[in-house]
Amino acid sequence: MTDRDFAAIDARLRASFEAQGLMGTMGARVDDTAPGRVTLSAPITPAIHQQHGFAHAGATFALGDSASGYAALTMMPLGAEVLTVEMKINLIAPADGVRLIATGTVAKPGRRLLITQATVAVERVDGTRRDVALLQGTMIPA
Amino acid sequence: MTDRDFAAIDARLRASFEAQGLMGTMGARVDDTAPGRVTLSAPITPAIHQQHGFAHAGATFALGDSASGYAALTMMPLGAEVLTVEMKINLIAPADGVRLIATGTVAKPGRRLLITQATVAVERVDGTRRDVALLQGTMIPA
Amino acid sequence: MTDRDFAAIDARLRASFEAQGLMGTMGARVDDTAPGRVTLSAPITPAIHQQHGFAHAGATFALGDSASGYAALTMMPLGAEVLTVEMKINLIAPADGVRLIATGTVAKPGRRLLITQATVAVERVDGTRRDVALLQGTMIPA
Amino acid sequence: MTDRDFAAIDARLRASFEAQGLMGTMGARVDDTAPGRVTLSAPITPAIHQQHGFAHAGATFALGDSASGYAALTMMPLGAEVLTVEMKINLIAPADGVRLIATGTVAKPGRRLLITQATVAVERVDGTRRDVALLQGTMIPA
Repeated sequence: MTDRDFAAIDARLRASFEAQGLMGTMGARVDDTAPGRVTLSAPITPAIHQQHGFAHAGATFALGDSASGYAALTMMPLGAEVLTVEMKINLIAPADGVRLIATGTVAKPGRRLLITQATVAVERVDGTRRDVALLQGTMIPA
Repeated sequence: MTDRDFAAIDARLRASFEAQGLMGTMGARVDDTAPGRVTLSAPITPAIHQQHGFAHAGATFALGDSASGYAALTMMPLGAEVLTVEMKINLIAPADGVRLIATGTVAKPGRRLLITQATVAVERVDGTRRDVALLQGTMIPA
Repeated sequence: MTDRDFAAIDARLRASFEAQGLMGTMGARVDDTAPGRVTLSAPITPAIHQQHGFAHAGATFALGDSASGYAALTMMPLGAEVLTVEMKINLIAPADGVRLIATGTVAKPGRRLLITQATVAVERVDGTRRDVALLQGTMIPA
Repeated sequence: MTDRDFAAIDARLRASFEAQGLMGTMGARVDDTAPGRVTLSAPITPAIHQQHGFAHAGATFALGDSASGYAALTMMPLGAEVLTVEMKINLIAPADGVRLIATGTVAKPGRRLLITQATVAVERVDGTRRDVALLQGTMIPA
């Protein structure tokens, strides 16, 4: 892939991200993109809390799933779309912090299906990070 | 369990639900509770859309996960809490409709772990429903 | 589907099952087939034990996965094949008994992907049964 | 952990492995152990084939699950045991080769639950390797 090719894919990815209402609701942003790897983040505010004041598993999942889908999108031809077929999340620590950071990667590209993995971390007020969730799933070209 | 016991559990469940910021953000409500079974629903608005105007997989997951957790909570002693250990979602159709409806059930209660299943459907403007996701996961008393 | 159509599919399914070396190694057999539902069973012998003398999770998975795949196969055109894309198993009780019985069903048929669910039970020496595992997965036409 | 501590754990692990009938049936062996990481392998013979002559997903799962469980065991106090709570496998390529090689690692140790990941590869007759499956699951002290 040339830099120009990736720039076009990156522009499509960001336009798609802007069109995801849920990402806007969460105040999420695209932090980094590269072929096969995308990082998204979002502030942990009461709007996405569960009952103990941590990020809700649904918010953690949403960010990890979107990071996974966009990582897959970077491996697809320009103009393609991907949908989540299935996704599994293991929650490994409470999402107690000020920011959720999700990095999705493509474990196995493919024409019919892509396998993705993602890690979601929290950043705490002191800037330290801790992994809170691991995701593994399947994307399909739409 | 007596009706009075379940009434107390139901009150706790609803108080916990009210404390989940993400459920409030989604405009979600508790539709029905019974021992081992909880139904939640939420309107599909742009606030939870993905890029094609359907409900985002993250929103579908969030509602299914919460329904699963609260179904587990109905099987626990009063005052207990549960956390999601892991959850897997299979997305079986686009979440194209006006309302998401998630029903969580307890497939296997237990003192150390509970296994849950959930179905998420969409209701369309004509009132018809279609299943859009199946979830299977594990809850742990907190 | 006519009975004749299903008889042809059933014959193909049984021929495929006979060709699965692992099913032979486990002494597994086809107990029942119907459109969208297949039951397989296998004796719990030391050949498939884990370290405590119960059926190994790998054996429980193998039977549940095969039952799922063959359930999917009954929904496909004659001559098609299916492969497991992904499969998740929740182990809900020790597989302590004399026989494993796995029933796979198709939760969502489809041209590109099929979603399956399976329950694996053990039969004990007194003939009683207990569910030991729940599986949920995705099959793809091969 | 001292070397002597790990030697004792390693001895327990190998004794447990020897007691797993299914691993014996598969001709599996322990290739490598270290704190938090275990590699097992097994020949791909007709005894574990699926209908196309590749390793059955059940065999791939069994080896990956055992590698995961033993990786977890290396992080536990001597004399502890672990059971699989749940495990998800993504099959990313046909298991077409002469040997299955599974490496399990502990993604998150814990007193109540451990999260594991595993990769299963095939070795081909020319000695090259290819990943065929990724597993992510949860172990519980027994």
